[in-house]
Amino acid sequence: MSTSSVPTPTPADKFSFGLWTIGYNGADPFGGPTRPALDVVHGVEKIAELGAYGLTFHDDDLFAFGSTDAERQKQIDRLKGVLADTGVIVPMVTTNLFSAPVFKDGGFTSNDRQVRRFALRKVLRNVDLAAELGAKTFVMWGGREGAEYDAAKDVRAALERYREAVNLLGDYVTDKGYDIRFAIEPKPNEPRGDILLPTVGHALAFIESLERPELVGVNPEVGHEQMAGLNFAAGIAQALYHGKLYHIDLNGQRGIKYDQDLVFGHGDLHNAFALVDLLENGGPNGGPSYEGPRHFDYKPSRTEDESGVWDSASANMRTYLMLKERAAAFRADPEVQEALAAAKVPELSTPTLNAGESYNDLLADKSAYEDFDASAYFGAKGFGFVRLQQLATEHLLGARS
Amino acid sequence: MSTSSVPTPTPADKFSFGLWTIGYNGADPFGGPTRPALDVVHGVEKIAELGAYGLTFHDDDLFAFGSTDAERQKQIDRLKGVLADTGVIVPMVTTNLFSAPVFKDGGFTSNDRQVRRFALRKVLRNVDLAAELGAKTFVMWGGREGAEYDAAKDVRAALERYREAVNLLGDYVTDKGYDIRFAIEPKPNEPRGDILLPTVGHALAFIESLERPELVGVNPEVGHEQMAGLNFAAGIAQALYHGKLYHIDLNGQRGIKYDQDLVFGHGDLHNAFALVDLLENGGPNGGPSYEGPRHFDYKPSRTEDESGVWDSASANMRTYLMLKERAAAFRADPEVQEALAAAKVPELSTPTLNAGESYNDLLADKSAYEDFDASAYFGAKGFGFVRLQQLATEHLLGARS
Amino acid sequence: MSTSSVPTPTPADKFSFGLWTIGYNGADPFGGPTRPALDVVHGVEKIAELGAYGLTFHDDDLFAFGSTDAERQKQIDRLKGVLADTGVIVPMVTTNLFSAPVFKDGGFTSNDRQVRRFALRKVLRNVDLAAELGAKTFVMWGGREGAEYDAAKDVRAALERYREAVNLLGDYVTDKGYDIRFAIEPKPNEPRGDILLPTVGHALAFIESLERPELVGVNPEVGHEQMAGLNFAAGIAQALYHGKLYHIDLNGQRGIKYDQDLVFGHGDLHNAFALVDLLENGGPNGGPSYEGPRHFDYKPSRTEDESGVWDSASANMRTYLMLKERAAAFRADPEVQEALAAAKVPELSTPTLNAGESYNDLLADKSAYEDFDASAYFGAKGFGFVRLQQLATEHLLGARS
Amino acid sequence: MSTSSVPTPTPADKFSFGLWTIGYNGADPFGGPTRPALDVVHGVEKIAELGAYGLTFHDDDLFAFGSTDAERQKQIDRLKGVLADTGVIVPMVTTNLFSAPVFKDGGFTSNDRQVRRFALRKVLRNVDLAAELGAKTFVMWGGREGAEYDAAKDVRAALERYREAVNLLGDYVTDKGYDIRFAIEPKPNEPRGDILLPTVGHALAFIESLERPELVGVNPEVGHEQMAGLNFAAGIAQALYHGKLYHIDLNGQRGIKYDQDLVFGHGDLHNAFALVDLLENGGPNGGPSYEGPRHFDYKPSRTEDESGVWDSASANMRTYLMLKERAAAFRADPEVQEALAAAKVPELSTPTLNAGESYNDLLADKSAYEDFDASAYFGAKGFGFVRLQQLATEHLLGARS
Repeated sequence: MSTSSVPTPTPADKFSFGLWTIGYNGADPFGGPTRPALDVVHGVEKIAELGAYGLTFHDDDLFAFGSTDAERQKQIDRLKGVLADTGVIVPMVTTNLFSAPVFKDGGFTSNDRQVRRFALRKVLRNVDLAAELGAKTFVMWGGREGAEYDAAKDVRAALERYREAVNLLGDYVTDKGYDIRFAIEPKPNEPRGDILLPTVGHALAFIESLERPELVGVNPEVGHEQMAGLNFAAGIAQALYHGKLYHIDLNGQRGIKYDQDLVFGHGDLHNAFALVDLLENGGPNGGPSYEGPRHFDYKPSRTEDESGVWDSASANMRTYLMLKERAAAFRADPEVQEALAAAKVPELSTPTLNAGESYNDLLADKSAYEDFDASAYFGAKGFGFVRLQQLATEHLLGARS
Repeated sequence: MSTSSVPTPTPADKFSFGLWTIGYNGADPFGGPTRPALDVVHGVEKIAELGAYGLTFHDDDLFAFGSTDAERQKQIDRLKGVLADTGVIVPMVTTNLFSAPVFKDGGFTSNDRQVRRFALRKVLRNVDLAAELGAKTFVMWGGREGAEYDAAKDVRAALERYREAVNLLGDYVTDKGYDIRFAIEPKPNEPRGDILLPTVGHALAFIESLERPELVGVNPEVGHEQMAGLNFAAGIAQALYHGKLYHIDLNGQRGIKYDQDLVFGHGDLHNAFALVDLLENGGPNGGPSYEGPRHFDYKPSRTEDESGVWDSASANMRTYLMLKERAAAFRADPEVQEALAAAKVPELSTPTLNAGESYNDLLADKSAYEDFDASAYFGAKGFGFVRLQQLATEHLLGARS
Repeated sequence: MSTSSVPTPTPADKFSFGLWTIGYNGADPFGGPTRPALDVVHGVEKIAELGAYGLTFHDDDLFAFGSTDAERQKQIDRLKGVLADTGVIVPMVTTNLFSAPVFKDGGFTSNDRQVRRFALRKVLRNVDLAAELGAKTFVMWGGREGAEYDAAKDVRAALERYREAVNLLGDYVTDKGYDIRFAIEPKPNEPRGDILLPTVGHALAFIESLERPELVGVNPEVGHEQMAGLNFAAGIAQALYHGKLYHIDLNGQRGIKYDQDLVFGHGDLHNAFALVDLLENGGPNGGPSYEGPRHFDYKPSRTEDESGVWDSASANMRTYLMLKERAAAFRADPEVQEALAAAKVPELSTPTLNAGESYNDLLADKSAYEDFDASAYFGAKGFGFVRLQQLATEHLLGARS
Repeated sequence: MSTSSVPTPTPADKFSFGLWTIGYNGADPFGGPTRPALDVVHGVEKIAELGAYGLTFHDDDLFAFGSTDAERQKQIDRLKGVLADTGVIVPMVTTNLFSAPVFKDGGFTSNDRQVRRFALRKVLRNVDLAAELGAKTFVMWGGREGAEYDAAKDVRAALERYREAVNLLGDYVTDKGYDIRFAIEPKPNEPRGDILLPTVGHALAFIESLERPELVGVNPEVGHEQMAGLNFAAGIAQALYHGKLYHIDLNGQRGIKYDQDLVFGHGDLHNAFALVDLLENGGPNGGPSYEGPRHFDYKPSRTEDESGVWDSASANMRTYLMLKERAAAFRADPEVQEALAAAKVPELSTPTLNAGESYNDLLADKSAYEDFDASAYFGAKGFGFVRLQQLATEHLLGARS
């Protein structure tokens, strides 16, 4: 008989799900839906039951594009009802500027100015809704902002239009007094051949050019960075370094290919372990470095029926909690601490210059150059990184405790 | 205090190492060696001590390219001595047709015919040595057989020359009565822009064109297939299907990038788990599907000194054994068995046609088409694949037993 | 004023289009259709007008999945009518085993045996239609034959079921006396995480295991191989080497990412040039190495309306013809011929052994080894490959004539 | 007889070469040198003869790591002599912090503090040399700043140490009055598994955190961005948008794989065309958007001898000039101008808001939302991007003029 030692999720874990994730109907480029539409009330009841604390959504997830005001309001009211009934909150809202034909060349950066104006209006309306629902983060994924062909898009003009839009939104929430910050979600490609702000780095750089950079951060997604072959945990570390990790999208991706949106942990496990370790243990005194929602932006596989939807929702949370346990054990292991010290990992936090040392002092320090024995690093002074990685691997596999 | 539950390697596990792996000096495209040369005697003593049973090598690993006969023989004798002392065997030998300038356009398929003749002679001499040392497998990695530019290489002529070479080798070992089989090692690129026979599939197809296909199989390497974004375990399954898994190179790779040659398990852990499960539990009655050496073709990271070399050698074996344990527990778990059945995994082994059924019978079976309810698969009849993957994940993480 | 020197396509060029290509409505993973359905009659009239000679289709392209016999027949009759009116032929037919929910785990290799039986029936019916329409090639793209998770699919069982299906089809067309050959279309991933027979190589190897391998070849697609980072022209060369290039899918792809299905030549231009050179000039006496349809399997970008559809259809043919012209000029250029000789490209067609030479003769030839000066290749005996590539580049750019 | 219409390079074109590029000896991960060392005097004479205007170098390229002061000075003097003789200038200098064993874990961000101090000293000395030689740009490629394993490197600490180093360098050149700016060269991986500041975006974001951001820009390399599957021309556009394109490395790369350093134009031709168009025609009034050196950072293929080195150096410049001609013709073609207008490419430069329009005005504009007909974009209002791309393709192929 089998036994399991997997922790149970609770609202204190701050797990949230996109309505479009549990509601994904299975349509993909080569086939139509395999599942019927999910009603929002049922969806919220189920994730509450499974231990999540939050629901997020695009406007079009809740009420179809082109809904009348009455249809829209009805769905908002139904959502509010089930939130009240379950205690689930809405930590984040986002806008769909990518599905309708009008957005075929994007929203904020469509070559068509009328589309850009329509997109701004659609977002402004949804910002009001976000504020009404108490969301603290407003995500912007510009999935259609891009091009397949270089001549088709003036990238500098596109950045300028994107900047114009975000500046306007910053003014709007400031004037309205909304307690909302924006988070840009980068992605390198798909559905466009190349997407504007393709990585966390490009988004961070863009944010610094804004009029109100303090209002805008990033919402990195595991698979999006990994689609560019980038190390997700390293990207998150840079976002934290710049104080810009405003939200996060957890899922799984198996290498450089189409956007898979697998369950968190069903992709690169080593990197998932490093990520959870960073989020949970990378802050001051080894506490969390990120306090926001642990948000899952994944798709239940097209092969699944509704039971597979909930199994997969649960799997995301279970894996996160298992990794959190293993990361805690990793940090607590004296042999790991010894190996980290041997690898001089903590020494990187010591400034290279002594306190008060100037470059003139450094230039005068013969031990730093003239008397420094660089040849001593041949055949010796190994860093022991492989040993450290093996310790991480053994903790990850639950073989140490 | 930490505790560990990692099994200890023994010769019965059939772990083998390339002399070039533990002997890797750290040179890479952007830097020279960080470690001195490893003496073969010391190397064999160490891997024996760590629990390995086999050593493999290229000719040039043991005696430098251009050695005199006396220098060559001296090194062979030293190797034989330490094999006798330690009980280590040489299960496989291979030839270096890629390092010396003469092979700058390859060996068997160099555009330069004199180089091709030289390459054949170098290999024939090494086949004799392989036979002398009792090796049963002779690996051929054609790392320089390829091109950077399409006009530079007539690929069909290259295949014909490769075929000519392997046919000659087949005649040679047959006539000599050597108990040796050949194993082609595919790789998509690096050091050439594109390499001939880039994947397991291409090599398997080529083998069928040979005069003695029964003498030739494949030696797939984890990282080489993953450099093309291919699923390594799936490729091994196809090689097994065609009866062609003659040898295997285990290591780790983190996605589509340069050839990393990390420790086994320090790359894609899910696929490593599936691979070990296939090798150990995929055969008749759930036993091994592959009985040959578990050969590690990896590189100790350039950051390491000698202690890191042995830590990394050990890490390969430890991880393999941990995955073997977890794969056994996965197979033994009744919930896994139930989930596999629910996902109809075993049903794929049932022929699609009934015993003796012809296509006419099938065409006459209305239940197969006219009366078949295809619409029943919408919103129902889910496969439960995500649940199964989560069970695999929890076993991999050591959370179930 | 601008002038253009682009050739005009004619039926003699054997250009064909999939009905699903010009009929692509723009739906993708993040958005619905941007164009209405294309009527087959209009489509055939337009491609005839543009100079194409053939139309290909999946059953479901012509008549929706689940059509009644009457609906199906009506559409077949409409197709026949427009074929007669325009002179367009149907060189190839294929079956959709991937869009309907019933195929969510594939067709021939679904874990669900009832699905496999249904898939076989669907294909058999469509083979009859192919024969009726005079198609000589029947393509099989197993886009859903695969898995996201290793434990979910027994790859060897899947290969055995695929083999069972193709063997049955071989018997069927043989018994019926149909003049039809099958062509397997490989793809590494998307819509499944990993697809069975992921590359040209894997398909070629599988074909050799069939009961009637002579009936089955490959239908490689530019983008599918390039999604694995493989050199498409090199893969085609290997398919030709094995006598298995039965059909070809031309399009464009910009690197390792989702399946883009761009216009031919809007992806990797160097490789497109090499491909056209191989197809047109790689055969006996420098003639074509492939005589079948030049089939475009691409998607008019989602940003386009109907005029963009026909512009894109035309662009495929124009680019092919431009590359054909440049490849002819490349071959005819005396400087190119001199550079090829200097690079010893033709020398690769000379057998490595002399006529009648045995391995004993080779072993006795001191000039091949003992007296061979391998050191002469250091700093000399360069191959001149870069010069050759630059000549190709200058021809490609139309800078030489 | 063949004719060629390729322009001849002159110093006015501002082509420069790294000493390590023409001096590359052919060593790679699987083989040693195939060419002898190149003497700097000969190298400068040759590039001058071929039409280049500049030479760049790492300290270790000119004088070996560990040289005595006398050896170092001798080489500097020899360089100065040939510069004076040929008129070649040194527009850029850079430091090697990646080849010697001491830098096995990096320079500025090595976990070993003593290494960091040594690295700073090595760079400071080289900055003095750069100033002495009149270089205006000092490039920093941190190729060893990174890790293979997540636990081995505290990425935030690494960024902080990198920042400390660059701040110190900024103080140094400011205090010294050097007319030098720094340019960070990003790369995603190789030789480390993951490198700090992996893309142009990450580097741009980091620069904004510096004390003197105005002194620091980027030096993007074609292949480095393409190794992450990113669009190089789009990345350059963002660098220009932020005013940070301080230098550029031109070469060729064929997709996501090891760093190929091919000749410029021997990789992705479409993107090379877009890049040259951007650099030459993307500035004010259609003039250059970048005025600095056109620097080639490539490697003559290992298959070549010295004649291949100079053929390849020449090929870089020829291809650049051919693309410049074609880009000019593309811009001058009235049909292209018409197609750009039809695709609304220039309309993206029009602000989305009217002059002086506030969000309240926008919210009051019914034509922007309430009366806007989003459904008109279905089946109509296509952008004509494919037509535009085909025009670009035909110009690139020299088929229009």
